[in-house]
Parts: sequence; structure tokens; C-alpha cells
Amino acid sequence: MKKLINDPKTVVDESVEGFGQAHAGHVRVHTDPLFVTRKDAPRAGKVGLISGGGSGHEPLHAGYVGYGMLDAAVPGPMFTSPTPDAIIPATIAANAGAGVVHIVKNYTGDVLNFETAAEMAEAEGVSVRTVLVNDDVAVEDSLYTAGRRGVAGTVLVEKIAGAAAERGDDLDGVAAIGQRVNDNVRSMGVALSACTVPHAGVPSFELAEDEIEIGIGIHGEPGRHKIPMENADAITQRLLEPILSDLAPAAGERVLLFVNGMGGTPASELYIVYRHAAKVLEAAGLIVERSLVGNYITALEMQGCSISVLRLDDEMIELWDAPVNTPALRWGM
Amino acid sequence: MKKLINDPKTVVDESVEGFGQAHAGHVRVHTDPLFVTRKDAPRAGKVGLISGGGSGHEPLHAGYVGYGMLDAAVPGPMFTSPTPDAIIPATIAANAGAGVVHIVKNYTGDVLNFETAAEMAEAEGVSVRTVLVNDDVAVEDSLYTAGRRGVAGTVLVEKIAGAAAERGDDLDGVAAIGQRVNDNVRSMGVALSACTVPHAGVPSFELAEDEIEIGIGIHGEPGRHKIPMENADAITQRLLEPILSDLAPAAGERVLLFVNGMGGTPASELYIVYRHAAKVLEAAGLIVERSLVGNYITALEMQGCSISVLRLDDEMIELWDAPVNTPALRWGM
Repeated sequence: MKKLINDPKTVVDESVEGFGQAHAGHVRVHTDPLFVTRKDAPRAGKVGLISGGGSGHEPLHAGYVGYGMLDAAVPGPMFTSPTPDAIIPATIAANAGAGVVHIVKNYTGDVLNFETAAEMAEAEGVSVRTVLVNDDVAVEDSLYTAGRRGVAGTVLVEKIAGAAAERGDDLDGVAAIGQRVNDNVRSMGVALSACTVPHAGVPSFELAEDEIEIGIGIHGEPGRHKIPMENADAITQRLLEPILSDLAPAAGERVLLFVNGMGGTPASELYIVYRHAAKVLEAAGLIVERSLVGNYITALEMQGCSISVLRLDDEMIELWDAPVNTPALRWGM
Repeated sequence: MKKLINDPKTVVDESVEGFGQAHAGHVRVHTDPLFVTRKDAPRAGKVGLISGGGSGHEPLHAGYVGYGMLDAAVPGPMFTSPTPDAIIPATIAANAGAGVVHIVKNYTGDVLNFETAAEMAEAEGVSVRTVLVNDDVAVEDSLYTAGRRGVAGTVLVEKIAGAAAERGDDLDGVAAIGQRVNDNVRSMGVALSACTVPHAGVPSFELAEDEIEIGIGIHGEPGRHKIPMENADAITQRLLEPILSDLAPAAGERVLLFVNGMGGTPASELYIVYRHAAKVLEAAGLIVERSLVGNYITALEMQGCSISVLRLDDEMIELWDAPVNTPALRWGM
């Protein structure tokens, strides 16, 4: 294992410390327990938005703390849920009197810990709503999940619900739009190589020299099947088929196409996937109205990508286009 | 070799095609010969800025085409200079009557081809100035270079000179500020793994299981030496020492600290490097005034990073902070 780290035990703390220094204009890092908030206190009356989960998926979630997205993020240990003792103060810090929405990826540990934290925060007078993200069509139930996993759709939920909160929507309204994004997005991923969790020191799974895994999870947990290596267009087709068959968009509908890098794949390859994915969607009569391509939710240094398709409506487009100013996503301001 | 590609011969064309579709709001892709311009024609009287070079370093250069940075980019074949027949029309397209600055990384092929293109463009009435970037302190002369190589400093030259052009500086002024950035920036990189050029099909160099290469170039060309793996802080120190000894900033000076990922390294590791680099600079009495962390100039899927230190002055800070709106770098608008 070769990694730019000092000690597997200090990876998350040191990384978040460096992140906080590099983005001191955007965020503030709180330690013991560890969580990240916007630099400035939330605007009175704005609904707060927080998310969190195991580390190793950067820039998710701390990279999305800032105007137009999250108010706070809670990085857990590597690929391990953060505990309620960190989620509770993050929830309280994000509350500006209008309550807080928890955006939770559907993994058993995250669900339990955010649920406990929500109860404790409610007991302290903070209203909490939860949006559970479960966009991965690859498998029902998995190594860490009952039901579908939450993957790249999370970024889209955070952006669009964040814009709704910034616009002044109330607690139920922000949760509803987050839920609507989740209901309209489907994702599926592929791994060309495994990733190595620092404290484990060995790859989290095995792939032969000419083998890839279709339907991989963002922790390297099993997908649908391992198959021999294929070309990019064939892989793209394999990822899109279950997405489209599950989402079942009608011809003429507008979609956002999101090609996400898992961490170790060059941008040039992501654009080759994007190119064919756009062709497939257009051949299905869909209109690719918005796009996102890059490393937005990763699995350490894994090689591979995921494709997400979000069915758009006018309001979602308006909220997607709204200004955002975070370390990892910025536009319009 | 496992890559998300269809055919080694079509990687660049397909990738740039997908890039153009995903960023249709920013750029326009011209084919045969291949170059990328801003979507809209340049503003009359603005100095044009173009760059180019071998592909495989994405988002450099096409990712920086847009308001506040480049007017055009010329992607060559993988790790191979673009030819004058593509650089000439890109130069002409970038000309809005005030001339064009070529930003050229110091590799023999790029230097020759941009020189030829500049002469041909001048013959067609376009005034051209050239800024040669040679910020890599690792080695004098190399596999593809006489003199020092141009590496991550190129991104900073493009941003700051691009802001000067947008501000309305004249041709000599834009070239002068680009030159000033180059004169004040030094970089050095490390590889933890090699990268594989698609048409070669095998890694461009060899590293043992516990070995890293200090001073690596962005094409995997040799650096200073191979050494046994060390921790992140020690590697950071090794990269910064030659940078600081060559740049020789005085205590109290302000700098921009840029930690660049080579393509296959997780963001979390880049922030661990940033954390220690900032400490080292502060211990040397320097003020880390601005920061950039991420994959901005890559070597395909290589694992590793580079560190760049740019000595800042008031004008450079103002131009750094100025609005930019490109696919890969956006802020302030």
C-alpha cells in the first residue's frame, strides 16, 4: 500500500485539518467531535442542511459546505458512519431557528446514527426532517445496507435541496424537494480496480487483470457481477440499461446526466463515458438538459465511474442553476 | 491495461467530443484540426490567450477555456505536442484585434510547434507573444526538454494572465504578467505509481512495491531519484526543499500554495500534503495567502502529487481573485 499519509489512524483528522486550512474562506473545522460548518453562522430563519457519512468519498460531504448547499458536514472514520455525538452538535450548529434537514445515504450505520442524533436534537428543540438517499439500482440489500444504497444522487440532492433552503423554503418544503430529487434519480457504478482503506492495508476486493465489477458500491462492496473488461461504450450501455428501465422516463423528458469518477480514473475517460451516455439518452428520446462530469463522490483511489440520470422539472432546473459557492462546487457567484 | 476507452486511437477525439457536449455552455469544439474555443467569439480589443500541449493532463488546457482564462486550447495526441496546423487556427480564432499570447510549457515539441505557428499567424497579421513556462525545479534537461520542464505553474500563469487580459491589459502587458508569474513560481512532483498511455498499453516506467519517484515529470519522465516509500510529511518536505531553495523567498512574503493531484490520488491525501506544506511554509516565515488543492494538471491515472509555491504581490492577488468561469475553475461569477 502506497499512500500519501502519515499514519492510518490520523488520515481523517489530518485531511480534514488541511481541508479546513485550504478553504478557510469557506468553512470552519470543529474538532472533538469532528464536524465542518460554513465559516459564518447560518442566516436567521434559513432551514439548515447537513449531511455526513464515512470518509473516503471526498469531496463529499465537507466539500459541499457553503452557500447554496450544506450548512454542515460530519466526516466519519474511513468508510464508517459518524456517531451521534458528532451529528448532534453539527445539527445544532446548522439550526437557525427553522429546523434542519438531514441528508442520509442509505447505509445501516448512517441511518441509525442520524436517527439517534435527530431524536436528541429534537429533544433540544431543533426540528429535524430526514431525506434518505437510495439511488443505486445495482442491488437490493448489500454488505452495509438494507434496501438500495445511496450513492452519487446524494450530490444532486444536496445541491437542489440546498438551493431551496437558500431561497427560503420552509423545513417541510426543503425536505420535500430533496425527497423529490431522490425519487427521480437513479445511479449505477463500475469498478476497474479496487481501493485500499488505509487501516486495512490491503485492497477491499479482488479483480483479475482483465476483469471489472458492474454495479460496484462506493465502498467496494459487491455489485451485480464481475465480467471481462469491455470497451467504454459497452460498459456505459450496461450501466444505463438498469437505470433507464427503473426510472422509466418518457420520451421528451429532460434529464441531468452525471458521470462521476470514483477517484482513480482520468477526466478524459469520464468524458468518453459521458459522450456515449448522452447518445444513449438521446436515442431514448430524452433531452440532456444539464450535465455534471468529474470526481464528486469517490471511493478513495478506485478506478471506475458511476452514471446517474435525474429526471428534471422546471423547478429542479431553476434550483440546479442557482448560485452555489462551496469548495468543490461553485457557480453563479 | 484497463481503461474506460473504446480504442487507443480515438481516445483524444472522443474525450474532447464528450467534453464539448458536457460543457456546451462554455466551449465549442472545432474538429479537423482539433481545437477548443470559448462558446462566444472574443470581445473586440481583448488580448487573446491560448495554450495547448499533449493530452492526458486534463483538465489542462481545455478545462481552462472560458471567461477570465483562455480563449482557446489545442489538445495534442496523448502526451504529444499539437501541430502548427491546429495551433494556427486556434490563434486566429483567439485574436480580437489586440494580438494573442501563447502560453507554452517547456517541452521541445511544444516550443517548436508553437514557434512555427506564431510565425505563420504573424504572417497572417496576428501579433503573437509567447510565455514559456518552466517551473519544475526537479531537473535541468529531461527526456522531452532542454532546460526545466513546465508543469503545474502553467495553471497559475493561465489564471493570472487570463485575468489581466480580461481587465484590458495590452499584448505586452498580458505577456509580462504571465512571465512574472512564471518567474515567481516553482514546482516539484512525486509519483507513487506510473501511468499507462493508451496506445502504449504498458506503464511508462516501473516502480517497485515500496518505491516512489521524487521529481517526476507529468509524462512519467524521470525525476531526481527513486527512493523507498516515506510518510506524507517527509515527502512533502522533500518536495518543498528544492522549491524554497530555488525560489528563495524572504520571510514575511506572501505565497500561493498549490497542491496538485496527478490523477489517481484521493483528495484526502492531497489535503494531508497541503496541511504539512502550509506548516513548512509558515515555519519559513511565509504567509500562505491563497491556496489551490485538487487535480488541475494530471498525468492520466498516475498516483502522486506536485507542490507549487508562487510568490505573490498585490497585483497577482487581485488577478488571482478576479472572476473566472471555465469548466474546471470557477469563482466570483
